[in-house]
Amino acid sequence: MTTLASLIDDLVAANRILAGLGVVDGFGHVSVRHPERAGCYLLSRSHAPELVKSDDIMIFDLQSVAQDGDTRTPYLERFIHGKIYARRPDVISVVHSHAATIVPFAASSVPLRPIYHMSSFLSAGAPVFEIREKFGMTDMLIRNNAQGDALAEKLDGSATVLMRGHGYCAVGSSIPEAVFRAYYAQVNAELQQRAMALGGGVNYLTDEEAAKYDETNRGVLGRPWALWKQKFAPAT
Amino acid sequence: MTTLASLIDDLVAANRILAGLGVVDGFGHVSVRHPERAGCYLLSRSHAPELVKSDDIMIFDLQSVAQDGDTRTPYLERFIHGKIYARRPDVISVVHSHAATIVPFAASSVPLRPIYHMSSFLSAGAPVFEIREKFGMTDMLIRNNAQGDALAEKLDGSATVLMRGHGYCAVGSSIPEAVFRAYYAQVNAELQQRAMALGGGVNYLTDEEAAKYDETNRGVLGRPWALWKQKFAPAT
Amino acid sequence: MTTLASLIDDLVAANRILAGLGVVDGFGHVSVRHPERAGCYLLSRSHAPELVKSDDIMIFDLQSVAQDGDTRTPYLERFIHGKIYARRPDVISVVHSHAATIVPFAASSVPLRPIYHMSSFLSAGAPVFEIREKFGMTDMLIRNNAQGDALAEKLDGSATVLMRGHGYCAVGSSIPEAVFRAYYAQVNAELQQRAMALGGGVNYLTDEEAAKYDETNRGVLGRPWALWKQKFAPAT
Amino acid sequence: MTTLASLIDDLVAANRILAGLGVVDGFGHVSVRHPERAGCYLLSRSHAPELVKSDDIMIFDLQSVAQDGDTRTPYLERFIHGKIYARRPDVISVVHSHAATIVPFAASSVPLRPIYHMSSFLSAGAPVFEIREKFGMTDMLIRNNAQGDALAEKLDGSATVLMRGHGYCAVGSSIPEAVFRAYYAQVNAELQQRAMALGGGVNYLTDEEAAKYDETNRGVLGRPWALWKQKFAPAT
Repeated sequence: MTTLASLIDDLVAANRILAGLGVVDGFGHVSVRHPERAGCYLLSRSHAPELVKSDDIMIFDLQSVAQDGDTRTPYLERFIHGKIYARRPDVISVVHSHAATIVPFAASSVPLRPIYHMSSFLSAGAPVFEIREKFGMTDMLIRNNAQGDALAEKLDGSATVLMRGHGYCAVGSSIPEAVFRAYYAQVNAELQQRAMALGGGVNYLTDEEAAKYDETNRGVLGRPWALWKQKFAPAT
Repeated sequence: MTTLASLIDDLVAANRILAGLGVVDGFGHVSVRHPERAGCYLLSRSHAPELVKSDDIMIFDLQSVAQDGDTRTPYLERFIHGKIYARRPDVISVVHSHAATIVPFAASSVPLRPIYHMSSFLSAGAPVFEIREKFGMTDMLIRNNAQGDALAEKLDGSATVLMRGHGYCAVGSSIPEAVFRAYYAQVNAELQQRAMALGGGVNYLTDEEAAKYDETNRGVLGRPWALWKQKFAPAT
Repeated sequence: MTTLASLIDDLVAANRILAGLGVVDGFGHVSVRHPERAGCYLLSRSHAPELVKSDDIMIFDLQSVAQDGDTRTPYLERFIHGKIYARRPDVISVVHSHAATIVPFAASSVPLRPIYHMSSFLSAGAPVFEIREKFGMTDMLIRNNAQGDALAEKLDGSATVLMRGHGYCAVGSSIPEAVFRAYYAQVNAELQQRAMALGGGVNYLTDEEAAKYDETNRGVLGRPWALWKQKFAPAT
Repeated sequence: MTTLASLIDDLVAANRILAGLGVVDGFGHVSVRHPERAGCYLLSRSHAPELVKSDDIMIFDLQSVAQDGDTRTPYLERFIHGKIYARRPDVISVVHSHAATIVPFAASSVPLRPIYHMSSFLSAGAPVFEIREKFGMTDMLIRNNAQGDALAEKLDGSATVLMRGHGYCAVGSSIPEAVFRAYYAQVNAELQQRAMALGGGVNYLTDEEAAKYDETNRGVLGRPWALWKQKFAPAT
């Protein structure tokens, strides 16, 4: 398989994995930077992630304009992806989701913090994007490049950005890493909420502990990815 | 397929989707306004939603009297449907459910409020129907037209009405919209409960944000509906 | 099928339904009064409910002695069943479970109360059996007739009895009713816990509302039972 | 089947059971003391538990050095197993997991306590291992024999040890007992959290009650184990 074909295969798998893990439902999307065309990324046409096939993948430039005359209906919020790739050369893959455990943190004044090593990437910050600040009353969606850019600015150097009244995004240096972060960010939300509810003190990871595990995680990421692919996106 | 046959197909699908999503269990029901016979609606005979087939669908007038001499056992609470259709010409479909996350709000003094765009329809209000007010001590069911009418009056212009000690109803201008609202109303209950439990401030959608997304949602509703049909009610 | 064969069929189905609904796991059991032999009841040999077949069913007298020379290993806690049947002539079926949402109430000073019609049977009381009162330090199990009798005495006229540090029992005038109550008692525990956590006032069913629905429920119980049988114990 | 082959069969089953029960996901592992080679234990190569087959099992000595020239990639944290076997001659099997309900207790000042008989083994203590105490800022993993030894020292005579910012371990005198304890420790965490959230007093098992049930449990452990094997690791 060529690099491109293999990457599209992983992107389709990521759609199904995120659905299988309950990170996305009928909404949510995942993209990857184009490996051969600079300034382009790959993202499904507007479709439920669980149903995405390789034929559904479209190519967009960083202004999120569909390439090659593709006229299929794109996701309204594709600007999330284009603008994050534009601002963050290190980012190779982006996930956007409304996962149930994160939305409460996105609406709350309580910040998301890493409670165990699996979500150590949260120590880089989990800022909350308030769309009202720059855009006033909207339908909450990231519908254009100005909004996408503001979101990417809020993300800054973090691995995740929460979106008030909406959901969150997770980014990574590969598809497996972005999926891993999207999944464990929402697991962390559940665990942190439980720990806070116990009423005692809660001991979070320090930045140093988190940074050390982040490094380790690159070496073991292939293990859950292999499991997820086999469970949710088996080769047919 | 004729419009009627296709609508019955969707109604059967809605029954299975609501069961598949955990919105209904052995109880709960969903109806649609009859597309050809004014003053009539379609609803299954008394049967668990997950088992409903097209043969189970009965026709009722807005007094919830079975039509065409159909003598099969109807749901005790069919009056919910008849009276909502009578009062709300804009309503095409009605769901009634006892979903686990909503019942606590129906019993509580804490109101349900939209915490994210998916449940923006809650900004039209989620009033709580207290059957004791007009009917004193009952078995909690909507057993006649007077009770159905009181419930419809409480619903008023909202998309949902909660029922103390019982459950809730969601309405829509199509089957997919009513199902969408029944599903995301109970997701919102879970998310709001989690956000409140965090103990910080909670930032809900404003009415203006909610109204804007409501408009947007009409354009994207087909996406989860297509997924749900394929997952829970595949064509055989 | 004879009455006995058909009842054993339902008892096997009840085992699988309770496992399918998550009310029991590797532990828990369900029995039925013998329809032909006075002073006897039917209960599986010691076996995980999900695996029970008709061949596993044993006959016990109300002292919980195995009949007809059956030497297979019985459940240690069969005395629960014998003594409830001895004290409660109206009871035809008994379920014992460790369901996750009930154990917290069994350990807590907060009483379980009916939050909606489906669990109206709780208004007859959900007393908590404290085995320490009469038996001091034990292994928590109901291991003999004296303990079974004390539990039955605590149950008294209720539909359920909670067991501190252990679980609960639900009884009914038929297998479907006992299963229904075992299931909705633990649903109610989840809903009540959620309602209390909201922090506002909680409005429970009055005894009169509960009694009225209890009556209604007898007429509609067949609906979830038909669904559960088809889902979890389909005829082969 | 020889003892060794049968034990490997059970070890593979344990991997699949722990995944099926949600105790482990892509991470976590389970080992057993070698039945024939003193000072050795059996553990899968680095692999997601749900995918482990008998061919994946490696042999390690108590310094966690792979035996017989096996050069496959081992789990980074195999030192957990080696050092627990070294310090605890009574331990035959060890499970390590990041289960969702335990991590909050591992991060909290609130101790885990047995709320019902199924988790009576917690009365021997559920100490929390704080890796910072001896090792300062780490990546949270047990990466060497010194760390494994410190963890085993904290475990001491208990059946479980929690690991701050990480997860926990459960040990047993057989594979089924270690799996049972890993499973019910995390069930207990859920139940205790719920009981505490009710806001009333919570009545835990006394040490004497717990010790008595621990004894009883040895006789009934085969029942859930048979169920789990049949559900999650059926003979092919």
